Formats: sequence, C-alpha cells, structure tokens
Amino acid sequence: MVQATALTRNEDGIGLALGILKQQFGERFQTGASIREQHAHTTTWIMNQPPDGVVFAQSTQEVSEIVKACAAHDVPIIAFGTGTSLEGQVNAPAGGISIDVSQMNKVLEVNAGDLDCRVQPGVTRMALNTHLRDQGLFFPIDPGADASIGGMAATRASGTNAVRYGTMKDNVLSLEVVLPNGEIIRTASRARKSSAGYDLTRLMVGSEGTLGIITEVTLRLQGIPEAISAASCSFPTVEAACEAVMAVIQYGLPVARIELLDALVVKAVNAYSKLTLPETPLLLLEFHGSDAGVAEQAETFGALAAEFGGTGYAATTTAEERNKLWQARHDAYWAMLALRPGSKAVATDVCVPISKLAEAVVGANNKAAELGLIAPVVGHAGDGNFHASLLLDMDNPVEVANAEIYVSWLNDQAIALGGTCTGEHGIGQGKRPYLVKELGGAVDVMVAIKQALDPQGIMNPGKILP
Amino acid sequence: MVQATALTRNEDGIGLALGILKQQFGERFQTGASIREQHAHTTTWIMNQPPDGVVFAQSTQEVSEIVKACAAHDVPIIAFGTGTSLEGQVNAPAGGISIDVSQMNKVLEVNAGDLDCRVQPGVTRMALNTHLRDQGLFFPIDPGADASIGGMAATRASGTNAVRYGTMKDNVLSLEVVLPNGEIIRTASRARKSSAGYDLTRLMVGSEGTLGIITEVTLRLQGIPEAISAASCSFPTVEAACEAVMAVIQYGLPVARIELLDALVVKAVNAYSKLTLPETPLLLLEFHGSDAGVAEQAETFGALAAEFGGTGYAATTTAEERNKLWQARHDAYWAMLALRPGSKAVATDVCVPISKLAEAVVGANNKAAELGLIAPVVGHAGDGNFHASLLLDMDNPVEVANAEIYVSWLNDQAIALGGTCTGEHGIGQGKRPYLVKELGGAVDVMVAIKQALDPQGIMNPGKILP
Repeated sequence: MVQATALTRNEDGIGLALGILKQQFGERFQTGASIREQHAHTTTWIMNQPPDGVVFAQSTQEVSEIVKACAAHDVPIIAFGTGTSLEGQVNAPAGGISIDVSQMNKVLEVNAGDLDCRVQPGVTRMALNTHLRDQGLFFPIDPGADASIGGMAATRASGTNAVRYGTMKDNVLSLEVVLPNGEIIRTASRARKSSAGYDLTRLMVGSEGTLGIITEVTLRLQGIPEAISAASCSFPTVEAACEAVMAVIQYGLPVARIELLDALVVKAVNAYSKLTLPETPLLLLEFHGSDAGVAEQAETFGALAAEFGGTGYAATTTAEERNKLWQARHDAYWAMLALRPGSKAVATDVCVPISKLAEAVVGANNKAAELGLIAPVVGHAGDGNFHASLLLDMDNPVEVANAEIYVSWLNDQAIALGGTCTGEHGIGQGKRPYLVKELGGAVDVMVAIKQALDPQGIMNPGKILP
Repeated sequence: MVQATALTRNEDGIGLALGILKQQFGERFQTGASIREQHAHTTTWIMNQPPDGVVFAQSTQEVSEIVKACAAHDVPIIAFGTGTSLEGQVNAPAGGISIDVSQMNKVLEVNAGDLDCRVQPGVTRMALNTHLRDQGLFFPIDPGADASIGGMAATRASGTNAVRYGTMKDNVLSLEVVLPNGEIIRTASRARKSSAGYDLTRLMVGSEGTLGIITEVTLRLQGIPEAISAASCSFPTVEAACEAVMAVIQYGLPVARIELLDALVVKAVNAYSKLTLPETPLLLLEFHGSDAGVAEQAETFGALAAEFGGTGYAATTTAEERNKLWQARHDAYWAMLALRPGSKAVATDVCVPISKLAEAVVGANNKAAELGLIAPVVGHAGDGNFHASLLLDMDNPVEVANAEIYVSWLNDQAIALGGTCTGEHGIGQGKRPYLVKELGGAVDVMVAIKQALDPQGIMNPGKILP
C-alpha cells in the first residue's frame, strides 16, 4: 500500500462526539473495526485510514445534527456513499466520523415534463435508472461502478457517455448541502439555466466533501433514445484510432460513446470474454437517436474510420449483440486483472486535449515498457480521458517504486500537454501534489474558499488541497 | 430612471489612483464626463453612475498593474467590455476605475483539432465568428447584442442557441483571471473535462466582475453544421405553444433554437417587418445537422406541433428564407419599441421549469393587462426563459410605479414556480433583492466567498450581493 499521511487527531473532541452520536443514533452508529475499515479507502493502492465511527443518516436534518455535533468538538466529518472513489476520498487521516448516506436512497420527485428529478444522495445510478425506465427516461452518467449520485456529484464523475451528455457538472441542476456549521442551503432553483449569483452548484460539484455534505441532488434527465446502435472498429495503431476520434469530434458526429481499448486490453478481453477481435487498438461506439439518425451516424463513422485505416467495422442495432459488445468493455477491468492473476490494479486518470491523445497514450505505453510495467489502457477517447491500469505485485517494492515513477510521469505529461491529472476520479489524497503542478496559484484561491466556508477544517480534511 | 443606491466614496484613495493611472497610461486613461458616462449603465431604466476614470488596458499585465494600484488605495474597479449588460453591472455606485478591455481583442489561438480557442476578453462574439468561419467553426452562444466574450462569461450569458449548445457555463473551458490583489491565475487546463479541485472556472463565470477581472477565455467551439433549416409555426394560445415546446424537449429533438413570440410581439413584427403572420403565439425554430437529419427533425417537429394545434408550419433550408425569418426575431426589439414610439424598453428575464412556462407567460400577460402596461413577451422557450419587455413612458410616475410592481411580481412568480429571477442577464444592481428571495441562506455562502477573495470589497462593489 502507498502511505497516506496521517494528520493530528483531536482525541478529546473525537471522544466527546462518539459519546453524543452513540446516544443519539443507537444502533445506527457503529464503531466496530470491520465497519470502520469498510468506510475508509478500499480501492487501489492507497492505505486504509478508518474513521472512528460511522453514522447511518436517514435525513438531511440528521446530517445537519451530526455536523453540528462534530463542529462543536472540532471533529472531522467524511461523507460516504458507496465507497467506490479511487483516490482515497473516504479515508480519515485525522480520524473522525463517517456519515454514511446509503439509507438516504429515495427518489423524491420525477418531473417528466421538465426532464429532471430530485433524489437523495444515497440513490445509486443503477437504482435511479431502474426507477426511471417506465417513464421512458434515463440518467446518462456512467462512471462504471454503481456509485451513489451524491458521491458522483462530489467527485464530478463522468464516464463513457460524457462525450455526448457531459459530466456531473453538466447534469446537476441544484444541490441541497449541509454546510460545515450545520446550516442547510439549496444552491439553485430547478430552472434549466440561471445567472443568479455565484454558481454554488458547480462549486460543490467536485469539492469531494471538503465544503459541505450533499443531502439532495436535482438532476437533468434524458429521454431514452428511440434507437441505439453499437459498433466496433479495429485500427492498425493507437495514432490511427485517435485520429479517427478527432475526425468524429470535428465532424460533430453526436456519438454517445467512443471508447478506446489499446492492443493489450483487446488481448485481455479476447482471452476473458472468448472473443476473436484483432489484437490491435479498437474503438467501441454507441449511437443514440432516431432509427434513421443512428443509421446515418453509423454510416458516417464508417466512412471516417476507413480514412484512418479502420477495419472490421460493423454496427448493430439488436440489443443482444450490442450488449455482448459492451459487456466486453464493462468486463475489461476483470479481463485486465486476468492478464496477471493476483495482481492489484491501480487506476490512473489523465485527460488531455484530443489532439494530444495519441501522443499521451503512446507515451504511456512506451513508459510502461521502459519501466517493465504492465499498464493496459482504456480511454473515454472522445473526451481525451484515458486510464492506464497498472497491474502490480504489491509485494515487489521495486515494481511499486517504478509504478510511482510511472504515475508521476503520466500526470506530469498530461499537464505538459495542456491537460489534467484527473479527468473524472478527483484529487482525493492521491493527487494533491499534482493539483498544484496543474493549477499553480489558482490553488491558493481554493484554499481561501475552503478557509472561508470551513474555518475549522473539519470537512474531509487532508483531501484535494495541499 | 430607477434610483440605484450610491455607496460611500473613498475620495482620498480615488484621488491618488487617478494620479497614478494618469501618469502610467497617459492618453489611455480618460476622465472626461462623456466617456465616463458611456462606461456606466446606459441600458434600460437603472440610472447612470459613472466611474471616476476609464483605463483602456491592452494586456493582462496592465490589468494586473491597474488592479494593484487600485487595491493599494482601496479604490473600486469595474470591468467593461461592450456595456451591453442590462442590470447595471457596469455602474460605479462608489466611484472608482473602469477597466475597458475592448482593446484586448485578439484571438490568441484556435485549436481546430480540439474544437477550442483562446481569446482576449474584448473579442466580441461576432468578431470571433468572423475569425472562425474559414475554418468551418463557430461559437454558438448568441445573447442578441454583439457582446464581448469576457462580458458574456462574467454574466453567464446565453440566448437563442442555449437549448442545444448550453450557456457560457457550458462553453468556457478555462479562464485567466486577475484577482483582487493583482495576482494572475488560470482556472483550469484545456482538457474537455477535469475533476481537479474546485471549479473556479464556473465560480468566475457569472460572478459579474465581483471576484476578479477576466483577461483570457478558453472556449469550446462547434463545427458549422452541414445543414441548417428554419421553421415557424403558429399556435392558438400560449399554452398550446408551450405544450409543443415541452413535447419537443421530452422527445429529445435536438432543436438548435426554439423561440416563443406572444401575439403582441407577432403583431409588432408584422407591422415592423411587413409580414403577414397570424397574430397568435408563434414558435420560431432552427434545426442543425446533416441534410437528412434536419429534414427528419423538421418533420418530427411538424408532427408534434400538429398535436397541439400548430398551423402554418413551414420549414426552409435556403439561407435567404431562413435569414428573413430570423431577421424578424432579431428585429423584435425594434418592432416592440415601434408599438409605442418614444417609450423606453425595460427588459425582464425570468426562467422557469418548462412545465411552468405557459403558466408564467400567461400570468405575465394578465398581470400587464391588470396594471395597464404594455409588455410583449419573447422567450427562449426550450430553456423556460422569457423576456417581457415593458414599454414605458418614463415621464409618467404612475406607470413607472406600476412597472416596478410588475417586475417584482414577475420575479416572485418565477421563484414561486421553482424558477429564477434571471435566466441570463445576471443580478447586477437591479435584482439584488430577488437573489435573497430565490436562494436564501445560500447567499451567505456567496458573501463568505466574496469576503475571502476580495476582503477590501473593491471588485465591482454594490453588485450581486446584498
């Protein structure tokens, strides 16, 4: 495990808060070692730093009361949805209280006429889509994991559909937030746009629980498209695949998904999902629209892909074939792990301007080879966002050290290419040094905002900021 | 004119700043009454409150130096682009220095492969589109006036195309900003998405010059569509037209523009533009896409409109007919003024959930009639945003008093319907009381941010916040 710095603990305050919460919440307040560890970081390679207790909140009012109790004794507060964050966001480096919102899982309101809904933060994206399906609606953001909507908002999540539907920043209309002093605010109205003052919605989206606890989310929804078509296309090189992606974006083709799998991932997928794809870089696509519209999009993509040496291109509109194709993509994580049984997969998450994507991915492939690392790449290519997954033997210190060199190099390269060290996973604990490299003096503004809103520094300390 | 509260002036500091700036900028620093009045509020009914001097800045470095000079002497700073804001944003209620960025009008970089560009804040949207045309690109945000990109970012502008392309919040990738202490920051990388810390880009977009001065803007661009088609359709009632709009949005039809003109506006447009449209509520539309795509969109709209009593529906793809149709919309302001020669037009700007649009517009029509006011309505209907333009005899105090009652009622109604007092014009001076009505305790968070970033309170004082 990679060490995460421990912060100074306020033992007296924590002791007092534990007593108060135990008395108020009874069985809904837990301090067992196992449950506390489950509520700290459990993904990838950052060490687990458990909170001192976990409260299962059931209402905004309860969240407010917990925050007030913690604020009264200077005790850290960490919000917890499903625990699928990847950069140590739920760790408790100074101890404190984890507020688990998984029982706040109601869809409070669906306004079909306005294509919006209001949900509690513990609703997961799959649960929401199950709820919406009968009304012909869906919520498009798909970060892979069945994450909670509150957590997705807090990390500014996105995923495979972002090229068409945007990220959480584009799909959250309004938030209810409990501030560090326990006050409850609503950041915006339900109007589809507004120029009413500072954009607190966007300030809270991506703030990773460091400015407040999200207790309600109002989301934009989409109508389920009349037709959906999927396709795959092989390319001789990563460069050729990336050039095809750039052509798609420049053409304005409204692809719903355009995912890049490098040759190593295709090899892994073939082995895992019993497929026979050519083991060269692959683009997987999805088109949404009318019957005629998706047919036209598929045809246009075929013509563009051919210009860049695309082969084996085939589009399908049957749900069965489409699901088979995308299942392979969704299983890519397991397929990659199977490349090296027993290894730990460490996710990276850089995002660059699309014109730099080929350079960034080829560079990442070469750097992995140079360092003797196995690091297959999948990418949300239409956004310039890609994940090299390091498959590591965590018991081999030389390999772990090389992986740290690789991650550092990868983030620095993305920044040098005009991109970001995180397209969608957030900063958390893992990427704090890179935030400063990426944004320089702008980070001082973030620190000033943090101090203004959370002068005690109790909201998810040790995350995002230096 | 409606009074705008004057704030306390720091006479000594202003005197010192005037001396310093005169020495440093010579002829590029002006203090004549006429130029100062031109740099204060000149639109609609809020009184003119001129700054003490106007500096024509030519670089980020110069803006930084001006800000440092003003900060050293506690002197207010007001950024100025084209002066087309509508809520008194450029007034100087405590005096101070107007920084005119109209000479910072270079397109610094166009990255066609990434569909983005970097511009100075004084570039206007029309100048930008002229610059981009040869490369097959365009910047879609169209607030009507040929506003500066910096000003559009500062007020979170949008306009007719927002239903498809979003607002400035969705189309600004990154900003360079001079902070209240003169430091220069960049808010984000050029990547299309990022989860790197607090979203300072969106915090600055819509902050109306109260947190810093925007000195560069990195924008998302669009490819000019292969085909563009326009259409108009008459409806028996506002309700019927709004129901058709709701059907379009629910269907997911990607209309580029869908504008509502109420019967009074149609009457005005007929008279002004020599047209013979039925004098009932009208929807004006534009479709962007492939040839087949726009044809399909137009056909689908026709079918939806027919369900709600739409008549006289015709779509056209010829540029000449399309321009004629949209010219009528663009001339609506002049057409409305001609309804009452010599009157002053006062713009309103509420935005409600689309399901509430009919109720809001009909209510606005009825309220105007009740108060004996002439207030034709045009709306960016796909967003639920509409403007009732009050045509006022400013010499009639009863009428002006009734207009104030109307505006107050209109904003309160929008808030009560789950909407906002401003869809795209911003808060400025005019809407400060409504911001608190709309967002309550969230405004305290805005105040805390303002105090953290601008503790001296020198950036555009008297705007947005209570």
